[in-house]
Amino acid sequence: MGHQPAGSRSSVVVVGSGFGGLAVTKGLRRLAVDVVAVDRNNFHTFQPLLYQVATAGLDAENVAASVRGIFADQARFDFRCAEVSAVDLDRRCVMAGKVRIPYDRLVLAAGATSSDYGVPGVGEHAFFLKTLAEAVRLRNHVLRQFEDAAADPSLVDQGALTVVVVGGGATGVELSGALVELFGHVLAKDFRRLDISAAKVVLLEATDHLLGAFSPPSRALALRTLTHRGVDVRFGAAVTRVEPGAVHLADGSAISTRTVAWVAGVRPVPLAERLGLPTDRSGRLAVEPDMHVPGHPEVFAIGDLAGGWPQLAPVAIQQGRHVARQIARALEGRETRPFRYRDKGTMATIGRNAAVAELPLGVHLGGFVAWVMWLVLHLVTLVGFRNRASVLLNWAWNYLTYDRGARLILQETSPLEGTSPLEEPSPPR
Amino acid sequence: MGHQPAGSRSSVVVVGSGFGGLAVTKGLRRLAVDVVAVDRNNFHTFQPLLYQVATAGLDAENVAASVRGIFADQARFDFRCAEVSAVDLDRRCVMAGKVRIPYDRLVLAAGATSSDYGVPGVGEHAFFLKTLAEAVRLRNHVLRQFEDAAADPSLVDQGALTVVVVGGGATGVELSGALVELFGHVLAKDFRRLDISAAKVVLLEATDHLLGAFSPPSRALALRTLTHRGVDVRFGAAVTRVEPGAVHLADGSAISTRTVAWVAGVRPVPLAERLGLPTDRSGRLAVEPDMHVPGHPEVFAIGDLAGGWPQLAPVAIQQGRHVARQIARALEGRETRPFRYRDKGTMATIGRNAAVAELPLGVHLGGFVAWVMWLVLHLVTLVGFRNRASVLLNWAWNYLTYDRGARLILQETSPLEGTSPLEEPSPPR
Repeated sequence: MGHQPAGSRSSVVVVGSGFGGLAVTKGLRRLAVDVVAVDRNNFHTFQPLLYQVATAGLDAENVAASVRGIFADQARFDFRCAEVSAVDLDRRCVMAGKVRIPYDRLVLAAGATSSDYGVPGVGEHAFFLKTLAEAVRLRNHVLRQFEDAAADPSLVDQGALTVVVVGGGATGVELSGALVELFGHVLAKDFRRLDISAAKVVLLEATDHLLGAFSPPSRALALRTLTHRGVDVRFGAAVTRVEPGAVHLADGSAISTRTVAWVAGVRPVPLAERLGLPTDRSGRLAVEPDMHVPGHPEVFAIGDLAGGWPQLAPVAIQQGRHVARQIARALEGRETRPFRYRDKGTMATIGRNAAVAELPLGVHLGGFVAWVMWLVLHLVTLVGFRNRASVLLNWAWNYLTYDRGARLILQETSPLEGTSPLEEPSPPR
Repeated sequence: MGHQPAGSRSSVVVVGSGFGGLAVTKGLRRLAVDVVAVDRNNFHTFQPLLYQVATAGLDAENVAASVRGIFADQARFDFRCAEVSAVDLDRRCVMAGKVRIPYDRLVLAAGATSSDYGVPGVGEHAFFLKTLAEAVRLRNHVLRQFEDAAADPSLVDQGALTVVVVGGGATGVELSGALVELFGHVLAKDFRRLDISAAKVVLLEATDHLLGAFSPPSRALALRTLTHRGVDVRFGAAVTRVEPGAVHLADGSAISTRTVAWVAGVRPVPLAERLGLPTDRSGRLAVEPDMHVPGHPEVFAIGDLAGGWPQLAPVAIQQGRHVARQIARALEGRETRPFRYRDKGTMATIGRNAAVAELPLGVHLGGFVAWVMWLVLHLVTLVGFRNRASVLLNWAWNYLTYDRGARLILQETSPLEGTSPLEEPSPPR
C-alpha cells in the first residue's frame, strides 16, 4: 500500500458490528480516516450472554448496544443499517441494501451463522442462538410449551416440556445449565399444577466429551455439575433428523420434543462465498499473516470469518485492534506486521455458582471462584455503562430471589384483528 | 346469589390481566375460591409507560410483569395464556383457545383496543400504542426511518422523519413530548449527517384543545410546553384517510409521513360484542350499580369494558377491588353494594421536567413538581420490584445523559436464509 498524501481523506468500511468490527472501528478513532460501519442490525449483540436472554435471565435490550451510540463521540464515524449483499473488489465498493458504499480499505468482520451441517429438518424445526431475535424466539417458545401443557397436560407425554440441546460446546453447556435452573427454580413455582419433574433438558454431544476446547478436568467438572443438576447428557449422540415433534439419532432412537436448540456449530455468513476469494475447508476466508486477503492488501478479514484461529471473541477483538494498527501503519507508508494471538484463557459457566476457567500457564479454575471470575469478566466487557448496570441489577435479582423477571412471551399481536400497521417487509418464513 | 355451603369450592374466572383483572385477583386472595386468570399474554402490561417503550426510553421488559410471577404466593391461583373467544353464559364456561374453563363467577376485565373510528387506512398503515408489541413496533419503525434516511437523504423530503400523532389526549401529549426529546437529544447526535431539523412531530387533535379530561390551565400549559419544545400542534384537524406515505385531513390538506401514531381513542375488545349482553353506544357493557351485568348476578364487568366511568387505570383498579369485595359478600350470603369511584386525580407528563397533575379539592400542579410526582407515582404503582429498579435505573440514565439505551431495531431475523424455526403460527398480517 502506498503512502497517503498529507491531507487526503481515506475511507475504511467495516462490515459487521460484532466484537471484531467494534474493535477495528475503535482502533481507527485517532486516524485521519472516515469509517463507515455496516451491519444488518443497528446494534451490537453481546453474543456470550444470549443464552441468558433465551432462559429469561436477562432482557433482550440488556445485551444489545446501539452502534451509533457506541461511537457517538467519534467524529469521522458513520453507520449504515443494511445487510451487505455483495462486494465489488475491483471497483472497491460494498453493496448494502440499495446503497453502494465506496472504500479505500475494507474490513470484513461479518462473523458466522448457525450451521445445520446438512441435517434434515434443522433449518425448519430447530432453534438457533446466534442472534438476539433467535434468543427471544427460543425464550418465547419454551415458555409457550409450559403454558400449552398447563392448558392440556396430555402434551407433557408428547415431550412438550423436554428441551433437547444439540452440541456440547460452551454454548450448549451454558444453555443446558441455565435451562434446568429456569425449570427447577422458576417454572416449578409458576406451574405448580404441572408435574415439573417431566421438564427435562437433554444435552446431545456427538463426541465423548463436553467443552472440546477445555482440558479433561474442566470437561469432567462440567459433566459432573450438569448431571448433578439434572441435565441428561448423552455422548456419541449424532442427530440425523429433526421433526416438529421429535429428534432422531444415528443409533435409531428418537427423543420426543418440540424444542430442539441447535448450538452444534457455525459456518461463515453467506457473504463469504459470494466474494470469490479463497476459503478454507470450512468456508472461512484465507488470510495472509497480517490478516489481509490474498491479492487484496486493502481488504482485511477478521473474526469468525477469517480462517486459521479459534472462533472466539478475544480472537476477533485482538484481530480488530491489529487491523486498525496495520491500517495506521499503511497510512504512514510502513509495512504491515503479522497478527499474533495472545491467549488469555477461556471460560464457560455451567450455572449458578459453577463455571470453568482455563488461564495461561496452566492455571485451571473450577466452581465458585471461576463463576465469580466469569461474572466480573462479562460485566466488564459488556458494552455500555447502562447495560452493565442493568445486567448487574438483573443478575443480583436472579441470584437472590431465584426469580427470572424476563419470562415473557413477547408475541407479535395484531391491533385491529388481522390488520397490521407494518410497512416493513415480513421476515422470510 | 345464594349462600355457599361451608367447605364447598367456588371458582372465579377473571378474563384479562390489566389493572382491573389484577385488582380482582389480588382482592380474592384470602377467600376460599379458586381463581383462574385468562389473558392472551403471559404478562401484565403497564400501559401508562408504553409511550416510553415506543420512544426508546424503557426496555420492553421493564413495563411487563409475568402474571404467574405476580401471584406466585397465591395458592388457589391458576393462569391460562389464551385469548377468550366466547363465553357460554348459560352453561357458565369460558372458551379460551381450545380449552373450556367453567366458572361459578366470572369477571370480564378484557379492556379496550384501539379504535380506528372507521377512518380508511388506519388499520393498515397507522401504528397503535395499546400493547407492548405495538410499542416495540412503533419504536422499530421510527428508528428504521432515520436509518433509511441516513442511507438515502432524499427520503427526508418525502416525510420520512415526520411522525404524525393523532389524538391530543394524555397518550398523544406524552408520546409527542417524548418523540421531540428522542429526536432532539438522542437521534440528533446519532445522525449527525442528517438535517435533524427536518425531523418533525405533528400532533393532530380534532377539537380545539389538548387533554380533554383536564382543566383549561393544564391544557394551556401542555400546549405551551409542547409547542415550545417543537411539536407542531394542530387543532380542528380531523383525519379522513391514512396512506402509506401521507395522512389526509378533512380540510383537504395532507401531511407527508410514513409514521402515523394513532392514539385517538379506544373501543371495547371484540369479545364484548359476542357476549350478547346489553351495551352502551360505544359498545361497552351495561352494568348494574354493583358492576354485575344485567340478568347475570354471577358475571361482573369492570374497567374499559364496563360503561359509565372514565376509562382510566384508577377506575379499573377500584372496580376490581370492589368486585372482589362483592364476591366475598356474596359468599357470606350478604347483599352486594354499589360501586363508587373515588377520584384521586389525573396526571399526564409532557416531557422532561414537565407534567400536569390535577388532584382533588381543586389542587392543580404543573411543571417540575408535577413531573416528579408523576415519576414517583408511576414508579410506585409499577408491578414488581425488579421492574421498579430497572425503570429507575433507565430513567436516571436517560435524565443524566440525555441518552436512550433502548434505541434498537429488534427485527425478526431468519437464521438459515429463508428458513425459520418457528412452529407458532405467523401473526396475521
